[in-house]
Amino acid sequence: MPVQEDIMSNRRIRRGDSAPQVAGNGLIDRRALIGRGALIAGAMSAGVTTSLTGAAAEPLANGPWSLAPGVPVPAYGQPSKYESKVVRILSNPKLEPRGSAARTPHHLLNGMITPNGLHFVIARGGETNVDPDQHRFVIHGLVKQPMEWTVDALHRYPMVSRITFLECGGNSAPLYSKEPIQANVQALHGLTSCAEWTGVMLSTLLDEVGVDPSAKWLVAEGADLPTMNRSVPIAKALDDAMIVLYQNGEALNPSNGYPMRLLLPGYEGNMNVKWLRRIKLVEAPIMAINETKQYTILLPSGKAWQFNYPQEVKSFITRPSPGINLAAPGFYEISGLAYSGHGRISKVEVSADGGKSWALAALQAPVLSKAHTRFRMAWNWDGRPVTLQSRATDEAGNVQPTRWAIIAERGPPRGTPNVAAFPMEHVNAITSWGVDAKG
Amino acid sequence: MPVQEDIMSNRRIRRGDSAPQVAGNGLIDRRALIGRGALIAGAMSAGVTTSLTGAAAEPLANGPWSLAPGVPVPAYGQPSKYESKVVRILSNPKLEPRGSAARTPHHLLNGMITPNGLHFVIARGGETNVDPDQHRFVIHGLVKQPMEWTVDALHRYPMVSRITFLECGGNSAPLYSKEPIQANVQALHGLTSCAEWTGVMLSTLLDEVGVDPSAKWLVAEGADLPTMNRSVPIAKALDDAMIVLYQNGEALNPSNGYPMRLLLPGYEGNMNVKWLRRIKLVEAPIMAINETKQYTILLPSGKAWQFNYPQEVKSFITRPSPGINLAAPGFYEISGLAYSGHGRISKVEVSADGGKSWALAALQAPVLSKAHTRFRMAWNWDGRPVTLQSRATDEAGNVQPTRWAIIAERGPPRGTPNVAAFPMEHVNAITSWGVDAKG
Repeated sequence: MPVQEDIMSNRRIRRGDSAPQVAGNGLIDRRALIGRGALIAGAMSAGVTTSLTGAAAEPLANGPWSLAPGVPVPAYGQPSKYESKVVRILSNPKLEPRGSAARTPHHLLNGMITPNGLHFVIARGGETNVDPDQHRFVIHGLVKQPMEWTVDALHRYPMVSRITFLECGGNSAPLYSKEPIQANVQALHGLTSCAEWTGVMLSTLLDEVGVDPSAKWLVAEGADLPTMNRSVPIAKALDDAMIVLYQNGEALNPSNGYPMRLLLPGYEGNMNVKWLRRIKLVEAPIMAINETKQYTILLPSGKAWQFNYPQEVKSFITRPSPGINLAAPGFYEISGLAYSGHGRISKVEVSADGGKSWALAALQAPVLSKAHTRFRMAWNWDGRPVTLQSRATDEAGNVQPTRWAIIAERGPPRGTPNVAAFPMEHVNAITSWGVDAKG
Repeated sequence: MPVQEDIMSNRRIRRGDSAPQVAGNGLIDRRALIGRGALIAGAMSAGVTTSLTGAAAEPLANGPWSLAPGVPVPAYGQPSKYESKVVRILSNPKLEPRGSAARTPHHLLNGMITPNGLHFVIARGGETNVDPDQHRFVIHGLVKQPMEWTVDALHRYPMVSRITFLECGGNSAPLYSKEPIQANVQALHGLTSCAEWTGVMLSTLLDEVGVDPSAKWLVAEGADLPTMNRSVPIAKALDDAMIVLYQNGEALNPSNGYPMRLLLPGYEGNMNVKWLRRIKLVEAPIMAINETKQYTILLPSGKAWQFNYPQEVKSFITRPSPGINLAAPGFYEISGLAYSGHGRISKVEVSADGGKSWALAALQAPVLSKAHTRFRMAWNWDGRPVTLQSRATDEAGNVQPTRWAIIAERGPPRGTPNVAAFPMEHVNAITSWGVDAKG
């Protein structure tokens, strides 16, 4: 794996006399910008950055917020009222009798962490509000001694924290279509998020109950109304699976499984059972609806990919992207997210000429296994139409494919995208954003 | 610096036949617990963990949430209604004409990240709600070309993300007292928090304006009513200072400086000016009230520590701590936070016998410079009264001192704790939690 680029350090590596283009249509070597303020300023359009006379800054004009006290600090802080559009898109705001999806607005976010209020949700029965004092968690089946825990009891165990992404197996499904879909990053890729999760290793609790050698799988079951259940190989359970109690430091959000959920780092979201109440150790998978009718990819040959769990290497540009318009030609940062269920991201390449030439993006440290990784690329837009793309590679050597490669492998899409009977899961194609002359 | 312990890996290093005590009063080698489920279970008190017959788990009793649909998923998620006590303590809930403090409830959190709703706040004029479309940011003074930016313009610059703590210079002040203070971790240490911050390096913008060689300091000024201002050495501004726009992925919380704040990693919180509207480059510090009357430590000799910025190495145990009672003797995880304004944490030691013997705690990876680091220690409580302590060391070799060492250095505390005229800032003493026989 190549050495990861640390943006904070690299900013100081080199001072150049020029800002060399590293790929077509204005992609610039980020490190060459240091000490080149005039280059960025020159590339900024008039009216966006304003040069002042010294006098104009002394004193600054006061807004009304500088002339009167603010409001009391709340006991639990909320985003600014000016950020009211930074919300999840809801597929089912009235909770009609079908699943509910809430999508993360990645075009309006930056960094690696997804705040808890904006983490994506898929809930078949809505947001389930479990009373933690009444909740019990059981491990039974092929074990030496079945056991039951209260939430308080779990808090006494050794814990671990891990920053990792969660992605719905159906995220990015619209890219698997005959014609390119016109949609923004929230609609296309809003079913992936990344948080710091804290809880007890499942292996610790399996040590407690004693796994019978005949147990090859386990069945995880939620306390929600649809009683979500999935089969999980015992090897994953003994590897890095966690029983999660905390999300970004605080107790899990109710939409994300409060008071506890299963976390299978890198595996498709549906398996990370929320409102977890039971794990049963068994000899074979139970063939739940979500591992037969859904989350199974039927190929034209009649064969199917089943029990295909890790989310494949993926990336997408979040800024600029549809809804974030370019005010005028000049300098911009191209930024986005990359991640893989197979480990760390090793590189992300960016193209501004529809894939003819590619330049290596900077990766924001720390680059963590199975976590969102923020990539950044410097760009000087000349005002002409361009197509922006990103392509990620993970440490296992997997490279993000084109839409056409996926269609060639699976055959033409059957029916309408987002209908679960069709092979719409695990789509990790390269995304293209078109920028026209109006930005 | 010693190699950091990765809890996730170390859990698999060693399977022992015994669980050796590593320090007095039941501190256990965490790595020896692997494969020793019976040891933890045996150490759990009856009634907390329940052994079942297989039949009792099939089916589980349903709570009401398993029998009816939940509620619609909200566009912006909120914590569970059962977590209503997980809030910040407010010093000024009615916004009387004095400062407001909101303290993070560390005893109820776990992990490294502080969620935005629970990040600590000190606000002299309450929560200031700035309209980002009206807000302007200016750099002027000893520069070649003063400039003004809109919030949108800043979004075009190269950005960086960094996970770092922010701590009020007055955090932990009650520990500097003649008699030990009886208070919980929120009251003692609730003025430190940790988040992923994303924004533009200040050095990038200083490149833009061109720093005059005579500029040795800058003055950062907020748009809040008290017009908070502080002097900052130019070396820090050119090192790792950031103009922050995002906090844990989303726009800054209004209490934390929306739409932009200064971030000086490791430096006392007061300097990280919120609602930032102006930076003026100057030859000498302006001797603002917060760098003369406050945040200056007057010694008995009549000399004073002034311009003493980095927050010193510190740690405290969050669990168990006052308010988190031990239900019965047996196994518990001791967990807490450590951090230093001088770099990475290199080790944390824990004592369960009032400092007579110490054991090395596990540090949760990733261990980042100037970030909260979660430490964890396995403990088997025998039910007798004990005193729990933690002691952190940073990569620069600084070791957390005792209360007595601080009092010896500064002289006896003068007046009442928390009165700003007294040298109550930068207190990083070891905290002791007493556990009595009732837990």
